[in-house]
Amino acid sequence: MTGTAARAETILSLDEVLDTPCLIVDEEIMRRNIAEMAAFASSVGVALRPHIKTHKTPQIARLQLAAGAVGATCAKIGEAEVMVEQGGVEDVLLAYPTVGEPKIRRLLALMERARVVVALDSREAAEALSRAMAAEDRVLDVYVEVNTGQDRAGARAGEEATGLALDLARLPGLRVVGVMTHEGQANAASPEQIEATALAAGRALVETAEAVRAGGADVSAVSVGSTPAATYTPTVPGVTEMRPGTYVFNDNTAFRYGRLGPNDCALRILATVVSRPAPDRAVIDAGSKTLAMDRSLAHPGHGYVVGHPQAEIARLSEEHGVVLLPEGEDRESFRVGDRVEIIPNHVCPTVNLQDQLFLVRDGRLADVWDVAARGKVR
Amino acid sequence: MTGTAARAETILSLDEVLDTPCLIVDEEIMRRNIAEMAAFASSVGVALRPHIKTHKTPQIARLQLAAGAVGATCAKIGEAEVMVEQGGVEDVLLAYPTVGEPKIRRLLALMERARVVVALDSREAAEALSRAMAAEDRVLDVYVEVNTGQDRAGARAGEEATGLALDLARLPGLRVVGVMTHEGQANAASPEQIEATALAAGRALVETAEAVRAGGADVSAVSVGSTPAATYTPTVPGVTEMRPGTYVFNDNTAFRYGRLGPNDCALRILATVVSRPAPDRAVIDAGSKTLAMDRSLAHPGHGYVVGHPQAEIARLSEEHGVVLLPEGEDRESFRVGDRVEIIPNHVCPTVNLQDQLFLVRDGRLADVWDVAARGKVR
Repeated sequence: MTGTAARAETILSLDEVLDTPCLIVDEEIMRRNIAEMAAFASSVGVALRPHIKTHKTPQIARLQLAAGAVGATCAKIGEAEVMVEQGGVEDVLLAYPTVGEPKIRRLLALMERARVVVALDSREAAEALSRAMAAEDRVLDVYVEVNTGQDRAGARAGEEATGLALDLARLPGLRVVGVMTHEGQANAASPEQIEATALAAGRALVETAEAVRAGGADVSAVSVGSTPAATYTPTVPGVTEMRPGTYVFNDNTAFRYGRLGPNDCALRILATVVSRPAPDRAVIDAGSKTLAMDRSLAHPGHGYVVGHPQAEIARLSEEHGVVLLPEGEDRESFRVGDRVEIIPNHVCPTVNLQDQLFLVRDGRLADVWDVAARGKVR
Repeated sequence: MTGTAARAETILSLDEVLDTPCLIVDEEIMRRNIAEMAAFASSVGVALRPHIKTHKTPQIARLQLAAGAVGATCAKIGEAEVMVEQGGVEDVLLAYPTVGEPKIRRLLALMERARVVVALDSREAAEALSRAMAAEDRVLDVYVEVNTGQDRAGARAGEEATGLALDLARLPGLRVVGVMTHEGQANAASPEQIEATALAAGRALVETAEAVRAGGADVSAVSVGSTPAATYTPTVPGVTEMRPGTYVFNDNTAFRYGRLGPNDCALRILATVVSRPAPDRAVIDAGSKTLAMDRSLAHPGHGYVVGHPQAEIARLSEEHGVVLLPEGEDRESFRVGDRVEIIPNHVCPTVNLQDQLFLVRDGRLADVWDVAARGKVR
């Protein structure tokens, strides 16, 4: 169905009996990605605590732990519950404020089964947790979330974050053990800008940690996030931990840094051409319900059709991906019934839309894994 | 937490014990929406075959049937299986080409349990189905999908679609019983443009049906889709069936037509403020993993915060909704721990992201329904 050059980049023999759309994962590429990030973390002397939001799959968390990860990062407590119960995770960072009684009750239960650290950026959330912990004579480890420029959550690096950390350190039932940032602002720039932004974020975080220590709180962890910045931020002296997520699969967004290409992308959407209403237009059975709507700065459209870089997934509705086929594209590869592999723009939301991952080894289906932490919004 | 004017528009007492983010559905508004569309279909003399992609919930399909729907429309066979098995649906249109052996096998099984009609727009897909049906001495009812201007799937209205329909009518095992269109092109315009576009689409479809009949194939069904156009297309003489979906809940996108407002929107995302890093910025626990990324022409940002029309959900990451609070907005309603109701831009993908709907009656939790057809991508 595809030419020789295309086939070299695809990961599945396309006549495999899998119904579409589905997510296929090349085990070899994934294991290489996991090993390389672990080696990098080790080489710069920081702990690796991968964010599981990318895969949401216990089996993959186990591979990351086996490669040397110190634990996992989760956003929601429902994700953490799955990773502790099924993924062998014994040390989990909830990189998200825990707010409200239902979540606090679940947090207390989870603390019976694993070490849990919670990120906080407000006195209000901290005081509620403090009361709950003190009432049960428990102590919760806390990272203070620091805004180093993303302007999403977090107290501003410097005086504001330092003051917050020192206030939280005085609350009963809480132990402030670290500071963290998500330097997502490094995600939308040239490689040079990524480097400069990431390094500045790392330095701001380290300076904040030093100010907190000078104030009397012993914060040992200085934790940074984000795969795009992962090459840079962890190299800042004083950073102790990194939390990349996307690296396990990589995606279309990673292409633009130039270091990565399709053969570094472990996860593909396998899709079928279901309609070919015009010579320059095909419809595939992967729409926004499968590809998600995130855009990429690296490639126009809603994903990269492996082996067909000129094909543009120009429009999505929920079940339809409209693929434009310019002159010069191999239009004969898009007949009704033909299959294509697509690298998503942003792999994390794509995984969240599926119940299963199909593991491929040597071009053949090797295993089916439940995306056990999918849809854990709470 | 919210002022009096805001509370009038909210559907849940906000101190209810529900963890967030979650989807709450006001039963009264939903039932009114269902009844009004049924009455409209009846008043213009067309059959109502609602698209279940909006709710994906068997209990709601049953309400639609009880109100007079002739059956259901689904996109994927997995959705149809759920609706037939759990939703009491006995007559289902798969408004999507069935391509590939695994789906054909499931289609044959489903035909044992319900009347099934499949939409087709290519000879390739039709020939494969024809072979499968003829081999088992079965006959499959088919609608021919007609492109009346959306340029997604479908054979072009007129000669192309007529030729296709007549070719398909000659295939053994297939019975061409109708033509259908999805006039989605009427979705992005002013009310006047919606009307003109919808009426033109309806007329083009009816003319195609007449040409098919003149060619000798007895197509009785002339079926139109899309909630935005629902007021107009079904009024075209010769149209026999309508397939709206979104009307059951309505969403932010519907506001722009002027006929609908927040009190017509049955589904809300209940979310909690988890961070308040700056006076003009709050972070809620509903990000793209809950709100989805679809844009609305009716309202800036990623959803409408009920009672706070000036608050803009300006940026989403997966778990963070960044809400900008301009001067003049009631900033005291966005303290950490406060809850808000959000009407999504596009309700269908929002529902697909959740496992459950929380039914609210008179401001109180009345039931919890599984979104049983969620994630049925195949």
